[in-house]
Parts: sequence; C-alpha cells; structure tokens
Amino acid sequence: MDQHTVSELLRKVREVNPLVHNITNVVVTNFTANGLLAMGASPVMAYAPEEVADMVKIASSLVLNIGTLDGPTVESMILAGKSAEKHHVPVIFDPVGAGATCFRTESAQKIINEVKISVIRGNASEIANVVGEKWEIKGVDAGSVKGDVVNLALAAAKRFNCVVVITGKEDIATDGSSTFVIANGHPLMTKVTGAGCLLTSVIGAFAAVTKDYLAASVSALTFYGVAAEKAAEKTGNQGPGSFQSEFLNQLSLVSSKEIAQLGSFKEL
Amino acid sequence: MDQHTVSELLRKVREVNPLVHNITNVVVTNFTANGLLAMGASPVMAYAPEEVADMVKIASSLVLNIGTLDGPTVESMILAGKSAEKHHVPVIFDPVGAGATCFRTESAQKIINEVKISVIRGNASEIANVVGEKWEIKGVDAGSVKGDVVNLALAAAKRFNCVVVITGKEDIATDGSSTFVIANGHPLMTKVTGAGCLLTSVIGAFAAVTKDYLAASVSALTFYGVAAEKAAEKTGNQGPGSFQSEFLNQLSLVSSKEIAQLGSFKEL
Amino acid sequence: MDQHTVSELLRKVREVNPLVHNITNVVVTNFTANGLLAMGASPVMAYAPEEVADMVKIASSLVLNIGTLDGPTVESMILAGKSAEKHHVPVIFDPVGAGATCFRTESAQKIINEVKISVIRGNASEIANVVGEKWEIKGVDAGSVKGDVVNLALAAAKRFNCVVVITGKEDIATDGSSTFVIANGHPLMTKVTGAGCLLTSVIGAFAAVTKDYLAASVSALTFYGVAAEKAAEKTGNQGPGSFQSEFLNQLSLVSSKEIAQLGSFKEL
Repeated sequence: MDQHTVSELLRKVREVNPLVHNITNVVVTNFTANGLLAMGASPVMAYAPEEVADMVKIASSLVLNIGTLDGPTVESMILAGKSAEKHHVPVIFDPVGAGATCFRTESAQKIINEVKISVIRGNASEIANVVGEKWEIKGVDAGSVKGDVVNLALAAAKRFNCVVVITGKEDIATDGSSTFVIANGHPLMTKVTGAGCLLTSVIGAFAAVTKDYLAASVSALTFYGVAAEKAAEKTGNQGPGSFQSEFLNQLSLVSSKEIAQLGSFKEL
Repeated sequence: MDQHTVSELLRKVREVNPLVHNITNVVVTNFTANGLLAMGASPVMAYAPEEVADMVKIASSLVLNIGTLDGPTVESMILAGKSAEKHHVPVIFDPVGAGATCFRTESAQKIINEVKISVIRGNASEIANVVGEKWEIKGVDAGSVKGDVVNLALAAAKRFNCVVVITGKEDIATDGSSTFVIANGHPLMTKVTGAGCLLTSVIGAFAAVTKDYLAASVSALTFYGVAAEKAAEKTGNQGPGSFQSEFLNQLSLVSSKEIAQLGSFKEL
Repeated sequence: MDQHTVSELLRKVREVNPLVHNITNVVVTNFTANGLLAMGASPVMAYAPEEVADMVKIASSLVLNIGTLDGPTVESMILAGKSAEKHHVPVIFDPVGAGATCFRTESAQKIINEVKISVIRGNASEIANVVGEKWEIKGVDAGSVKGDVVNLALAAAKRFNCVVVITGKEDIATDGSSTFVIANGHPLMTKVTGAGCLLTSVIGAFAAVTKDYLAASVSALTFYGVAAEKAAEKTGNQGPGSFQSEFLNQLSLVSSKEIAQLGSFKEL
C-alpha cells in the first residue's frame, strides 16, 4: 500500500459517513464523537446491555475501550462483540491502562478471549500486558518502552490473530506477516486526553470501509498523524487548548493532496 | 409572538439565571453545562435515584435526554419527572436515537407515558418513532425525512398534549394549534456532537422563565440558530473545533438587537 | 511561604508529572484530565470497586468529587480512600453541591467520616453544609455567602483536622492555625463548568509533590488564579468558549516569573 490507499480510504469514509459504535470511557466520549464527526464519520455511543447488540447491527464498526471500565460494561462489551461477529462488523479494541490494575488486565484478556477482534491498539505497555509479557507501566497514557516493540506487535498479532497497532514515538501496525512503521504524529498529542482513544475510533472509521484492516490501520495512523502535524504547525506555541481545537479542525480539513505530501510510512 | 418576545425571554433568562436540572447522556454533559452557563442559565446534573426528586424541587426546569440510557437512569428520569409534576417544574424531553434500538424506543415511550412532558424535541425520525410511525433512522444525529414533518409535529403534539419541536433544515414548533417554522441555524451544527442535546437544554432554560412553552421553544430555536449563524460567519472555513468554541462565545454574546436583525421565524 | 514556594512546587509538578487519580463527576472528566495534562501532571480516572484500591497504590494523590454521585461510587470512593490512607497517598475532597440534596450532604459526611482527608475544597455553602452549619445554597456552582468565611474555614479545619480551602471572590486556605487569603482569579471562571472541580484536582497535583498540604493548596490557588487572569486578559471580551481554551493554554504556559509578578496572597 502507498499514500494513495490512505487518500482513497479517507475519501470513502467521507463519502459513506460510516456509523461507528463506541463503548468507551467517560473521559473521552465528547472528544471521540467530535473527532469522528470532524473526519466525516458518524458516531454513536451506547452502553446498556439491553441495546448494544441491536445498535451493533446498524453500525459499520464497533470500538471497545476500557478506559473507565466497570463490571456491567465488560458484559455489555462482550454482548456487543458477539453481535459484531454475528453481523460481520469489525471490532477495534483499546485496552487502556492494561497492566495498571489486575482488573484492567483481566478484563482486557476476558474481552479478547470472548470477542473476535479485528484490530487492537495500545501503547507498548498495554499490548505487553494483554499478551502477558512484563513491561513497565505508569498510569494510562505513559509506558516507557524497553525492548523490541516490533517483536511485541508480531507476537500479539500472531497470538490474537488480528491486526496490532502499537503507538509511541513511531507507530507500528502489523497483521503478523506484513509490518508498517508510521512516522507521522506530534508530541503535542500527549497533552490532549483521549488522543489515543480517538485514534482507536478513527481506526474504526477506516475499518468500516475496507476489509483490509491493516490498510485501514496504516491509513488511520497516517491521516491522524498528518492532522496532528498540521495542527501543531499552526498552534504549536499557543498551548494545548488551542492545539486540541485546531486538531479537530484538521481532522476535517486534511486533504488527499496533503496526505500525498506529508504522509510518511514504510513497510519493514 | 415576534422577535421582541425572544429578546424579552432571553433577557429574563440572563437576569434570573434559572437552574436547569439535566439528566442527560455522558457524551454531552460538559458541552451542555458550558452552553447553559454561556447563555446565562445555571446547570446542574444529577442522576442518582436517591437525589433526583430533591434536586428537581430547587430547579426551574428538568431536561431528560436518553442519549446513553441505561435501566437505572430510566427509573431516575421517571422519579425526577414525577417530582417535577408535583412541584410544577416543566419537563423537556429529548428522545435521542428513538428508533435506533427497541430499548430506546420503548424507554422513550415509557417516559412519556409516566411523566407529564411540557416540550419534546427531536429530529423527525425520533419523533416519528416515539409516536409510533415509521420513519427512516440511522444513528442518532441523522434522520432522513420523507413525509410531512408539520403533520407529524401536529400529530405528536395532540397525542402527547405538549409542545413538539422537530429540528432539521428548518425547525418546527407546535402546540397542536399554533405552529411556527424557524429558519435560523447553520449546517455546521451537525458537525458538533450534542448540538441537538444542548438545544433541548436551552429550551429548558427558556421554559424556566415563562409558562408559554411554545413561545419558550420558538425563542430557544431562534436564539440558538442566530448564535450558530454568527459563529459560522466568524469561523466557517476554519473547521468544527473553532466553530464549537465560537458557538459557546456567541451563546453569551448574542444580543436583543441581533435577534431583532437576524431572527427569522413565521407562524403557519 | 512566599511566591518562591509556589514557583518551586510548580516546577516540581512539571518535573515529576505526578499521577493524580480522580474519582470525579461525568461533567468534568475531560476538562479535568486536560487541565492536569496541561499543567504537567498525569491524570487517571478509575471508578470500579474492583480496581480503585489498586489504582491508588500507583497514584501520588487521590481526588474525590461528588458532582454526579451515585450509591456505588460512594462505595468506590471509600475503598479508594482507605487504600490511600494505607499507602500514604493524600486525599483531596470536593463536596460538590453538598446541601443541595440530602443525599449529597449525607454522602459527603459519610466520606469524611470514613476517609482520612488531607484537603477539602468547596464554596462557602458546600463547606458549611459539610460542617453542618446552615448557609444558603442554590445549585452547585453558586452559594451566596453571608457570614464569616474565615471562621467557617477555621471551624471546618479543626473539625476535620485537615486543610480547608474555601473559594469565592477571594480564596481562603487554612490548616486551622495558619490562614492564607489568595486574591488571584477571575470572574470568567464561573462561566466554565468544572472550574472548581479542576482546581480541586490541581490541588491534588501540588499535594503530590509536598507533604505541606497548606503550601500545596495556596500554591494551587495562586497558580490557577494567575492562569485565569492571563487567559482573561487575552480573551476576556471574546466569550467563554475562547476563555476556556486559552485557560488550558495558560495552565501549560504560566511561568515562575509570572507567578513572581502576578501571584497575590497573604497570611492573615
């Protein structure tokens, strides 16, 4: 795949406005919905066990995010995930903070065991904890990486038989055989809460318009990173409030031409 | 009523700072509270069955929004609604996503059956699903309209014996005998999550200062639409992040004079 | 203490990036997380009874905020609070809306009775209701003050054996023996929902880097007030949307030099 693939999938998202069903944490609901709207997708949030399976039926992808998990929501996620499998809806999983507490790690593993996942996205610590390897973790947005992240991604992809995205200074996406490194992005993203969570939902928007979930993931990472770079260029020295607002702007403004100019990824 | 009514009610909201009690969805809580503050009202969010009836007692209006409903919250809404009836507090109801799942449609109908509603606000699909007619619906913020929206509004108003507001390209407000069409607003609003939800709460702010709920609704729609137009004029080509921020600005800035100049509605 | 203490503690927060565990209300989660990130701290939100005690172990402070309380969350707060005591993690408590309903007042008192609190922050009405004195209250962000706020703060500090912060036109912080009045801040803060809640979490960030919780509180109030003044100076006539965004900018930009120039507090 090349930058043309990214542009083409972005065009398709903006044309189709896919409905992305998010079961996500209470910190990022608003930012996630606004980010999806800005890029051209259509968000819906629904949590109740009484309705999640029904909502998945009309959705084009399902995003599960355990950022502020509780017991009943784990059950809703599993209900939604099973409905997704039945209706051929891709599931994107974000194991926020896996490793920070036993409850998160075990819930993440339970969800992976019971739900057919198309893409997992996390930082290296989170992915390592889901796989069961020991990596350092502090809080939910950190994760000091010591080790071979590519090998970790490959191991996770093979173990869970899905695409694995590990984000950090460089982002990695692999399906276990092909592996891409994406260089786009900007450190200011770490100053916006939910930047990782929204990215997972953006992968959901791309995964709604192609069955090639690796291409969807690489496209989402490239598009998202370019939007961050453009927002940082415009507001970099103003502060995180201005950056966040401009980032939403850029999600709606980034064009195929800019992806061709600025998109930066390569296959390993 | 004319634009003077709108200006007068807006002045009253800003003078009285009515307390609007919102039981709303987790996506829009922050935006709703900031929008109410910006326009001059005073928001409170309270959900627990232990306190909703008490909170309603000190509130000037109650807004019920089923955007991310669950079972216990339906019960809280009914408790709050019964307290509102007892204490003569108007109830504004937003059946977000009614029709998208059975749970939403049935919950919306249950709330309407058990609570005395003053104003219902939704898009045509949502209102149709609450009434029981079949309209197309996709997600929660869409709703392709095929049919006579005015007739739908009239039917709903007569059925539920309350004011019905249907928003779309043009907005309609009716109490079943008088019907207004409001032309203000801007398509960029569809790029801000919770734009409809906040509007429902803004109707709540106006309904807190007059018992004429039709005038309150027309005033809210006009005021809100003028704010959107002004925000779009200032930030239209910058993107939805800038628009959202400027829209909050305009909720605080829109003046009586601007309503006289820009407000646009007519009685059918 | 003087302005040098404030600068020094701020520098330490930005160097250490302390993890602040928030159990807070659904209205302010996003703003709280973004505010903590902007100032240099690291936020985590976790609510589930299964994990709160574990999360506290890796946190440097715990913030409890009852803004949209329900029964299960009271239990989580108490579990988290007991874990905090065991692991010597300071607890900052924000009794949002205490007095507005019996449930809030009783829950606030229950939490205070069962959890060792380091700092309580509220407006005069909230603190009075927690102490048991009668003050006027309307909603959660108001509280018309009639009486001697300093005496109220002293009484609360002695009763609960902790630092008490009462915010209003001027802010007061006392440990029962030393008392400070902080003059920084700006009325536009009352137009941003969660301004008080985020302040409580900012106190949490400062309390994470010193055991002198009075110095932490005075520093947080001064820093926060200076950021508000700078944001108001830059955006004052634009409206609350621009102010909120600029306020997040200023939380990241306020420097030691500006605190030396603009910080304004005195010991009584």
